[in-house]
Amino acid sequence: MTGPEEAGSVTLDLLKKKMVEFAKERDWEQFHSPRNLLLALVGEVGELSEIFQWKGEVPKGLPGWKEEEKVHLGEELSDVLLYLVQLSDICGIDLGKAALRKVELNAIKYPVSKQQSQKTNNDTLFNGNNGTESG
Amino acid sequence: MTGPEEAGSVTLDLLKKKMVEFAKERDWEQFHSPRNLLLALVGEVGELSEIFQWKGEVPKGLPGWKEEEKVHLGEELSDVLLYLVQLSDICGIDLGKAALRKVELNAIKYPVSKQQSQKTNNDTLFNGNNGTESG
Amino acid sequence: MTGPEEAGSVTLDLLKKKMVEFAKERDWEQFHSPRNLLLALVGEVGELSEIFQWKGEVPKGLPGWKEEEKVHLGEELSDVLLYLVQLSDICGIDLGKAALRKVELNAIKYPVSKQQSQKTNNDTLFNGNNGTESG
Amino acid sequence: MTGPEEAGSVTLDLLKKKMVEFAKERDWEQFHSPRNLLLALVGEVGELSEIFQWKGEVPKGLPGWKEEEKVHLGEELSDVLLYLVQLSDICGIDLGKAALRKVELNAIKYPVSKQQSQKTNNDTLFNGNNGTESG
Repeated sequence: MTGPEEAGSVTLDLLKKKMVEFAKERDWEQFHSPRNLLLALVGEVGELSEIFQWKGEVPKGLPGWKEEEKVHLGEELSDVLLYLVQLSDICGIDLGKAALRKVELNAIKYPVSKQQSQKTNNDTLFNGNNGTESG
Repeated sequence: MTGPEEAGSVTLDLLKKKMVEFAKERDWEQFHSPRNLLLALVGEVGELSEIFQWKGEVPKGLPGWKEEEKVHLGEELSDVLLYLVQLSDICGIDLGKAALRKVELNAIKYPVSKQQSQKTNNDTLFNGNNGTESG
Repeated sequence: MTGPEEAGSVTLDLLKKKMVEFAKERDWEQFHSPRNLLLALVGEVGELSEIFQWKGEVPKGLPGWKEEEKVHLGEELSDVLLYLVQLSDICGIDLGKAALRKVELNAIKYPVSKQQSQKTNNDTLFNGNNGTESG
Repeated sequence: MTGPEEAGSVTLDLLKKKMVEFAKERDWEQFHSPRNLLLALVGEVGELSEIFQWKGEVPKGLPGWKEEEKVHLGEELSDVLLYLVQLSDICGIDLGKAALRKVELNAIKYPVSKQQSQKTNNDTLFNGNNGTESG
């Protein structure tokens, strides 16, 4: 049971603590080296991709998807997140702090005014300017 | 500047709101279809992998890594997270809620007592029982 | 220059030999452990994905792509292939032999008659029967 | 049965022809858009990664792996290859020709003499010079 934690306020720190405890209880810490966790993450990204692989373009909000498909998607998205949280933790990276910083760096790299002027030139946007959005 | 938000309390909801605002300000919502965001996420997982690709096994805590390498790692981990948050949002999935649920499902799938009895049988663990940990 | 080898007759064995020689000449064999090569492959799959990430659905034959984009795509596809060839080699797997065997296994797994009867039931195909095509 | 084709002489062109025929017989061409095949490839890279994910560093030649594990590995390597061949074909890219050209480009980018002088400076090699080998 999710209990008193409101879903809307789930912190990366809470997930980290849950995963640390989870691994400890099962004596799995021995398997959690950075590259093991990274490859596990790649495996989950593969499972996430499999959900979308034969569907052609998919509209926002996934209209027409069955409830069970959405639940499955939520599980695969979660698997990627949980390994990402564990990988960050094992590497000594504060993921929440790093993510906030990255948003700020992106805002500097892609200033609002410059991007908006590109509204009139969709072709430019399509051909690469947008291509490194968060690279 | 990260400002008053404490890094330890960064919620998935906060990141989602920041990314929605970020895309809106730049008129980038038009590019954020589920499969576009998924492929962008795969691209970032690739960049994350490149950091680790020639290093052989890497110990926990990344001893010996230069500060700039750790900063770079934090950025790539963040890029994966930010696209994951956006992909979840565009699909109508509450990522925080889904992640908490997945932790609970994993706890049922891998009961503590059963996993601990495997401590004595590392070979079994290595050959697959642990292989679908969060599959 | 490609020289006398006709492109149509490029064997996996030829590529393997070229990569073995390439690594040997540069003393790079020391870096070519299975997991290093695997992560390098994941990195290249990421670069391949970046080419397609903001494009929405792309028709067969890539109409409208610039020649330089196609050349770039060919390079990224090649990078994935070259690491795949090296990874197979370092693992002692005969990739050509394994691929021919896999085609045969797939033919058994997905008999022609059964698949053709699904022509009339696209919904079934979309919801999973096709989803593990070469799994 | 593999028949008269010697495994050592498996060409990319042969695999392409087999996959074209395979899809045609099953009326699967309708699903083989570039991005569908790309996501299917990512899915297979995920399955390949899962084989290596909990193993820590793995020596060349995979000593100690069971025969069935090697067979499984060969299948996943093949799945990646077969989707790569199909993706290239659907994009109108001659993969064999592109791969030979990429080997030549890499040879220019990483001249033998320069790389060999790095033998004495392993630290340099580890910290990035080698990091874009086929990027």
